[in-house]
Amino acid sequence: QPVDKLLNGLLVPGFDEQSCLSRYQSASYHKYSSSHVPSSYLLSQLRRYEDLHKRCGPYTKLYNKTVELLKSGQASDPTECSYIVWVSFSGLGNRILTLASAFLYALLTNRVLLVDGGNDIADLFCEPFPEKSWLLPKDFPVMNQFKSFDQNSSHCYGNLLKNNIINHSKESLPSFLYLHLVHDYGDHDKLFFCDQEQALLGKVPWLIMKTDNYFVPSLFLIPSFEQELGNLFPEKGNVFHHLGRYLFHPTNEVWGLITRYYQAYLANADERIGIQIRVFDIGTETFPHVMDQILACTLQNKLLPQVNVHEPVKALPRNQKTKAVLITSLYPGYSENLRKMYWEHPTVTGEVIRIYQPSHEEHQQTEKQMHNLKAWAEIYLLSLTDYLVTSSWSTFGYVAQGLAGINPLILYKPENRTAPDPPCRWGMSMEPCFHAPPFYDCKAKKGVDTGSVVPYVRHCEDMKWGLKLVDGVNDDIS
Amino acid sequence: QPVDKLLNGLLVPGFDEQSCLSRYQSASYHKYSSSHVPSSYLLSQLRRYEDLHKRCGPYTKLYNKTVELLKSGQASDPTECSYIVWVSFSGLGNRILTLASAFLYALLTNRVLLVDGGNDIADLFCEPFPEKSWLLPKDFPVMNQFKSFDQNSSHCYGNLLKNNIINHSKESLPSFLYLHLVHDYGDHDKLFFCDQEQALLGKVPWLIMKTDNYFVPSLFLIPSFEQELGNLFPEKGNVFHHLGRYLFHPTNEVWGLITRYYQAYLANADERIGIQIRVFDIGTETFPHVMDQILACTLQNKLLPQVNVHEPVKALPRNQKTKAVLITSLYPGYSENLRKMYWEHPTVTGEVIRIYQPSHEEHQQTEKQMHNLKAWAEIYLLSLTDYLVTSSWSTFGYVAQGLAGINPLILYKPENRTAPDPPCRWGMSMEPCFHAPPFYDCKAKKGVDTGSVVPYVRHCEDMKWGLKLVDGVNDDIS
Ligand SMILES: Nc1nc2c(ncn2[C@@H]2O[C@H](COP(=O)(O)OP(=O)(O)O)[C@@H](O)[C@H]2O)c(=O)[nH]1
Ligand SMILES: Nc1nc2c(ncn2[C@@H]2O[C@H](COP(=O)(O)OP(=O)(O)O)[C@@H](O)[C@H]2O)c(=O)[nH]1
Repeated sequence: QPVDKLLNGLLVPGFDEQSCLSRYQSASYHKYSSSHVPSSYLLSQLRRYEDLHKRCGPYTKLYNKTVELLKSGQASDPTECSYIVWVSFSGLGNRILTLASAFLYALLTNRVLLVDGGNDIADLFCEPFPEKSWLLPKDFPVMNQFKSFDQNSSHCYGNLLKNNIINHSKESLPSFLYLHLVHDYGDHDKLFFCDQEQALLGKVPWLIMKTDNYFVPSLFLIPSFEQELGNLFPEKGNVFHHLGRYLFHPTNEVWGLITRYYQAYLANADERIGIQIRVFDIGTETFPHVMDQILACTLQNKLLPQVNVHEPVKALPRNQKTKAVLITSLYPGYSENLRKMYWEHPTVTGEVIRIYQPSHEEHQQTEKQMHNLKAWAEIYLLSLTDYLVTSSWSTFGYVAQGLAGINPLILYKPENRTAPDPPCRWGMSMEPCFHAPPFYDCKAKKGVDTGSVVPYVRHCEDMKWGLKLVDGVNDDIS
Repeated sequence: QPVDKLLNGLLVPGFDEQSCLSRYQSASYHKYSSSHVPSSYLLSQLRRYEDLHKRCGPYTKLYNKTVELLKSGQASDPTECSYIVWVSFSGLGNRILTLASAFLYALLTNRVLLVDGGNDIADLFCEPFPEKSWLLPKDFPVMNQFKSFDQNSSHCYGNLLKNNIINHSKESLPSFLYLHLVHDYGDHDKLFFCDQEQALLGKVPWLIMKTDNYFVPSLFLIPSFEQELGNLFPEKGNVFHHLGRYLFHPTNEVWGLITRYYQAYLANADERIGIQIRVFDIGTETFPHVMDQILACTLQNKLLPQVNVHEPVKALPRNQKTKAVLITSLYPGYSENLRKMYWEHPTVTGEVIRIYQPSHEEHQQTEKQMHNLKAWAEIYLLSLTDYLVTSSWSTFGYVAQGLAGINPLILYKPENRTAPDPPCRWGMSMEPCFHAPPFYDCKAKKGVDTGSVVPYVRHCEDMKWGLKLVDGVNDDIS
């Protein structure tokens, strides 16, 4: 059957193909499940957004006009275009998740998403919207302040609330506000997730956001967004799957890394298994407890076959099933051990197991461009597998599972250098986990367990205070 | 067409298949050239040898009787069975070459080859001869002296000649002699390669040999062997190819390593290229000059395609040609660099290049059994490729090219840490090089360039004082 290049209408035709080969080629590499089809309402809202972006994007008349407001400093009348500016922050996985979160926020609030990240972003991702760029122009007035924005900045919304400089009775609002949604944010910053504050923010033409969290789950708990989100995502468990596939198209340079690796090492296997190994313990060595955990998880769940340590060789039936295992890790040891195990011993099933690891960069080097291109290529390669094993707490894995559209086996986070038992569990959904959600009932003005308010926002498998979307009905249980 | 399990009659049927799967399965992994067919005379002599080995092998009546002579110390009458005992010495590549040399010597002199190497040898190689073992029994009388045998031992033939303790007029000869054919051997040891001494040695029932050299080329220069060798090997350039395939059958444990690796990583490529990298410079790092040399050699000779560093991605036509490159090296760097190059850039031809390296053991560990099993597996895997690039001076590569039956591209030995120009050349033949040949004219009793006596014994490509057999006519040019 022919490949659906446009992913059930998620993408629009008409982009230049050569300048971003991945956009229309990705469908021929992915095996997307037909059960994850975007709602027609989502599609209509994406088209609406694209029109808005065309009208309000960089250097349009309306953009120029709204930029002028920054000079006056005041948000006088409601503007025709308003913006959410995403400021690049943290590792690649985090950035992809926060970009998707910011885009959903833009969809919900009728804002235009502009991206500050300089060449970094342009080297990694193609332009997602037709005609007008999503990159914030380099001559944007307050750009040189972005670096210094933090919890205590004079433009920080939480700070302004805390010091009562801004409030609902105030007549005049500033032309821009800084939203601090980084994991270390305070109670006043967290009021972002309250209806009342959203009403106020709606009047500010420029919002500038720094975050390292996939805050989408908490958007689902804001009453004024609930209806709209229900229409956009009747099934809750594939929000990032759709937004991610819509937004993130690897540039040709990254696409070259992805397709060459795929063709050379992964294409001709009967099954592909991705294992994303992110160890937060300090040390570059191969930890035995992590190795044990990986083995226990993949063997117990029958992703990989046991080996026969008693027989040196099995009469090999021709045309056995071949499984290609793609391992991503900063260190080479785990894949070397696995490759060695399947080299030294036959599998009990007769299956042929191939082990691959594209790179072992030893440590995070977010400042190096080739490092980031490879990290992105590896995330994407993981998303081309049929089964995924991911590490707790890692946004790197979240992105892969989301783009793949598969619910992963999640390796529990080891404590005290001991392999957890059980080693892993299947995820409840393919959604990322929001690591630093608020626990506040905006109406009642008191704490609440936000993980048990609605059936489709739950605590994560890998982080008990985190929140994640799971498939569920569009009903409030309250 | 059906696979010729017996390799044109080189092997005999009737061995138990299960206990040595490689013996009859190897033909289905190798693509032997039909131009290398053993002569019918070689086949008849192998059958004759097998009969001899059955009659004289360990614990036969005749063996026991000949062992008795060792106790008397004297070689009185000519015995019905006489022996050449090969004592394990040096690295694996060297051992394989010397075993083949010793076997050819046994064929030529009507001796029985027995192998001292304990479990080492039994773990690596199946029994090559029917019914009777080639392993020297552990209760062999002088076995405990083997370790101490050297140039100066009282049983060393060269030493006895030097001190005139033995000579052609002597009536009584000892029941055993030690032959020191190690690279550091002296002029008297080298008289082994003279007819006169061979005549004398013929009367000694037990010869015990230590060597680290493929001394076959010099056997071709001994007049009394010339006719016989001409009949056995009408084409000179495939002596080791035939003897190696006849003698060296990996045990099941090694066969498991070979077939699993082949199936997982090499089988489904359109072409297989082996690159054997042996660096004799001190240091474990990846030497830039060696890397440059490997690239220059493989690119100039069109074994591997150039990459396009200007274009990030090529529209990939489906079903491009795939080349699997098998690299063997003690260090991981060379293959990592190559893999990285073909990951980061597209090939100008559109070919898909996969790079593999089974192990990187860091240093020679001849005492560790798994290390040796892997070394043997890697040599054998190299022999399953379609093109070979080998390193100068390395017997590891010689064995691979010989078993493969392919004439390799030989990387010149770098001098002063500089990549040689040209980087490599095609070999004259697939034969190994004899690194420490004698330069002596036994008749004229003076020095001679043994590399220009007959057209089929030449100086090696990789070592100018070495000798190697090349294809040629069966004529003496003298
Ligand atoms: N190439 C590569 N880079 C990795 C890998 N794991 C971590 N990194 C690097 O470390 C960064 C981790 O940050 P992030 O992507 O936000 O993931 P997280 O820290 O696991 O949530 C990545 O962006 C990469 O730069 C890996 O498996 N492969
Ligand atoms: N596994 C493996 N071992 C190697 C390699 N190169 C050298 N070695 C080890 O080093 C030894 C070298 O000795 P030998 O086989 O006689 O080869 P040579 O020294 O190159 O002539 C081998 O037997 C192995 O033990 C390699 O590429 N792979």
